[in-house]
Amino acid sequence: VPFTQQVENLSHESLIRRASCLVTDSANTYLSQTTLALVDALTQYAKALHTLIALQKRYITSIGKLTPAEEDSIWQVIIGQRVEVSDRLEECRRFESNWMNAINICELSAEAAYNSGAEHACTATKTNLQVAQCKVEELRTISKEAEKKLAETKAEEIQRMAEYASSIDINDLEDIPEAYLRED
Amino acid sequence: VPFTQQVENLSHESLIRRASCLVTDSANTYLSQTTLALVDALTQYAKALHTLIALQKRYITSIGKLTPAEEDSIWQVIIGQRVEVSDRLEECRRFESNWMNAINICELSAEAAYNSGAEHACTATKTNLQVAQCKVEELRTISKEAEKKLAETKAEEIQRMAEYASSIDINDLEDIPEAYLRED
Repeated sequence: VPFTQQVENLSHESLIRRASCLVTDSANTYLSQTTLALVDALTQYAKALHTLIALQKRYITSIGKLTPAEEDSIWQVIIGQRVEVSDRLEECRRFESNWMNAINICELSAEAAYNSGAEHACTATKTNLQVAQCKVEELRTISKEAEKKLAETKAEEIQRMAEYASSIDINDLEDIPEAYLRED
Repeated sequence: VPFTQQVENLSHESLIRRASCLVTDSANTYLSQTTLALVDALTQYAKALHTLIALQKRYITSIGKLTPAEEDSIWQVIIGQRVEVSDRLEECRRFESNWMNAINICELSAEAAYNSGAEHACTATKTNLQVAQCKVEELRTISKEAEKKLAETKAEEIQRMAEYASSIDINDLEDIPEAYLRED
């Protein structure tokens, strides 16, 4: 019955339901983009952490075996990598803020879709929310593990430095590279 | 410089900004539809109230002048109109809930747009929010005035009934239509 169809399409309820589906559609797109960005940023952050860990480990094994010039050069690289790590973390925080906006908008739009009678749009949005949250949680766990490993490496470095300091004459201590004292 | 343009378009920031504009676009559409529906419902509610006020006023002027059959017939119409008023109020509440969802989504999406660097989309959404809120506020004021007028009419009716009751013999009181006693 084309006429009844027409009337149903022009009712406020029907127009609101359609508009609420537009909102869930775009909220899902926004969530996808922010999730991709955050996942990418977290991946880059974990990578940067692993590079820093490798550099620090290389330094630990070479403690006491390098010339001051060599020490200085390895410290330049480590300091550069620390800047990289902190830039990557900053990027994660920026995208995390966009991502949280997207999560909140998706939750509200799923509720609005449900209230406008667009149950399918509501369910689809909730599924997307879960997938996005799982994916981000997974990458956060990987980053946290890398942060833990870095802390362990730093503890190892401190211990190794102490061992080295006790093994050399007190007068040689001034040879410990200044860069090490600048460590955060 | 087409290459730079391309790179900018594919950056996470740029994709997030575009996606956040999709969200404000659809949130604005959703707000428009729910505002239209609520404004329409509030208008219909105010209309229904004014019809009821007119019916009650007609009844007041005819107190003591009608046959029981005439009283009964006017009360049937008044009761029917009360149902209409309560249906219209119910519709207002339903659309008000959709409208509040739209307001909340628009506020969040404006914030998200601002955070993604889409200042224009943010400003446009905030303007839309203000226009929608003013329009609904205006219609709410009209409804509230009609509700106040109805309450005044009811007070007038009660006073008029009391005058009529004191003007007639106590034995005639059973002629007061039963429908009046059913009044809410």
